[in-house]
Amino acid sequence: MKLIADNLRITIPHIQDALKKENPEPVRTLVLKCLEKKPWAIDINTEPLGKLPRQGMSFFIKAVESVTDLPLVIDTSNPEAMKAGVEIASNEIILNGFSLEPRKVSNILPLAKACNSKIVGFLLFPNSNVPKSESERLEVALELFEKAESAGVAKEQVIIDPIVPPLAWEDGIVQARTILKVIQRLPELLGFPVETMGGLSNLTTGAMDKNKKTLLELTYISMLAAAGLDYALIDILNDQTVKVARTAGILSKEQLFSWEMIPSEWLL
Amino acid sequence: MKLIADNLRITIPHIQDALKKENPEPVRTLVLKCLEKKPWAIDINTEPLGKLPRQGMSFFIKAVESVTDLPLVIDTSNPEAMKAGVEIASNEIILNGFSLEPRKVSNILPLAKACNSKIVGFLLFPNSNVPKSESERLEVALELFEKAESAGVAKEQVIIDPIVPPLAWEDGIVQARTILKVIQRLPELLGFPVETMGGLSNLTTGAMDKNKKTLLELTYISMLAAAGLDYALIDILNDQTVKVARTAGILSKEQLFSWEMIPSEWLL
Repeated sequence: MKLIADNLRITIPHIQDALKKENPEPVRTLVLKCLEKKPWAIDINTEPLGKLPRQGMSFFIKAVESVTDLPLVIDTSNPEAMKAGVEIASNEIILNGFSLEPRKVSNILPLAKACNSKIVGFLLFPNSNVPKSESERLEVALELFEKAESAGVAKEQVIIDPIVPPLAWEDGIVQARTILKVIQRLPELLGFPVETMGGLSNLTTGAMDKNKKTLLELTYISMLAAAGLDYALIDILNDQTVKVARTAGILSKEQLFSWEMIPSEWLL
Repeated sequence: MKLIADNLRITIPHIQDALKKENPEPVRTLVLKCLEKKPWAIDINTEPLGKLPRQGMSFFIKAVESVTDLPLVIDTSNPEAMKAGVEIASNEIILNGFSLEPRKVSNILPLAKACNSKIVGFLLFPNSNVPKSESERLEVALELFEKAESAGVAKEQVIIDPIVPPLAWEDGIVQARTILKVIQRLPELLGFPVETMGGLSNLTTGAMDKNKKTLLELTYISMLAAAGLDYALIDILNDQTVKVARTAGILSKEQLFSWEMIPSEWLL
């Protein structure tokens, strides 16, 4: 399971401020802190970047690339910002992402063909509502692959994000279990090793207590890994969750085990 | 997921000694310590109790029942000791257990009919070797249910133990994943809610480092819970593993979630 730092978000006040002032230092400082924890990639969550999408995306990508060669996950719902990301980035990129929403199918999906990069497909209805049942989700997945094929994007480029639900939703805990089944079923249903990405932070939306959040996250990340999740968007600065996530990655993917796979710096 | 304390074992020197001296105090003290952690049941692991199976089992059961009304898991491979346990115990009991080994089919399995209690069936070949593949394990499970039926033991009385393998085995990590699939598949294969029990301590046999052991155990217990495990034999005195196990139990079984389900005393 590849761990992607989800820490760089435009919603953090001092990062928002850094963009306004075009000062890359706060972004660099945050990313350098994340790099110490050895993520596989850095998610750049810029939200839509309303007014100046190209300048905004350029600012973030340049700031991040000034400190790392790791893959970048370009996380925006704005096709203009995504296009800018594709054009500006030198590092390997993953586009995050598209859904069945027509605007995204026509404006974001084709960018994955143009730059031959991987693209995340969200298991959401065209109106952005979340499907409820396993079968609804599997149908949406099939449609996402159909749209990708029509756009000339190979099925191996598509990473499915089943959308981890907040437990605080009325049926959130049931939905959280359905997600596990969907991750497990997709490869056998579609007949090839479908890759999946999940964002852990949604699970505990509304948690008042950081320790409760951690306990739920590290339990659920083990379940996601067992289901076969390939990429986890995770708070890479939360040591406990990250250690369990790495251990879960080993238990769910390796063919041989040795005690040395669990380095002493991972201990809780 | 019901947590069963696996802490009372005859292999612990001071417990062995207590039996020799017929002094119940060390057993009571250990069980009282376990009770503070609120297990669902207490496993009494007496091994075969070679010379005096009846006296030995009587000693343990009386000592444990003097401090608790919780269910007891009678954990012995000796039919004489098991028979004594069935006759002596007042608390609810689970027999742990039988396998396809002819001696156990003829001498232990019928005890479950006689006392109408649940009995654990081990996923092992008749010679006690461990099956390797998922299909071999599912075949053994079918045979266990056939033997139970022939002995007049209802299928609802049988709890399947898929035998968690040590990770240190050559293919232990692959076997550990196969176990998860077996737990998940059994109910759909057999068409009723087959119950399963797993012992966590085997997983890390040979671990030198207690923290490494804990990290692996709490990760794997989450995976077992997600697969649908009903009963976990667990070191109830290991707070970290137990907290994660309880959280995993909630995530894998509950229909509604509330933050209050995670009490603050569970926090890591």
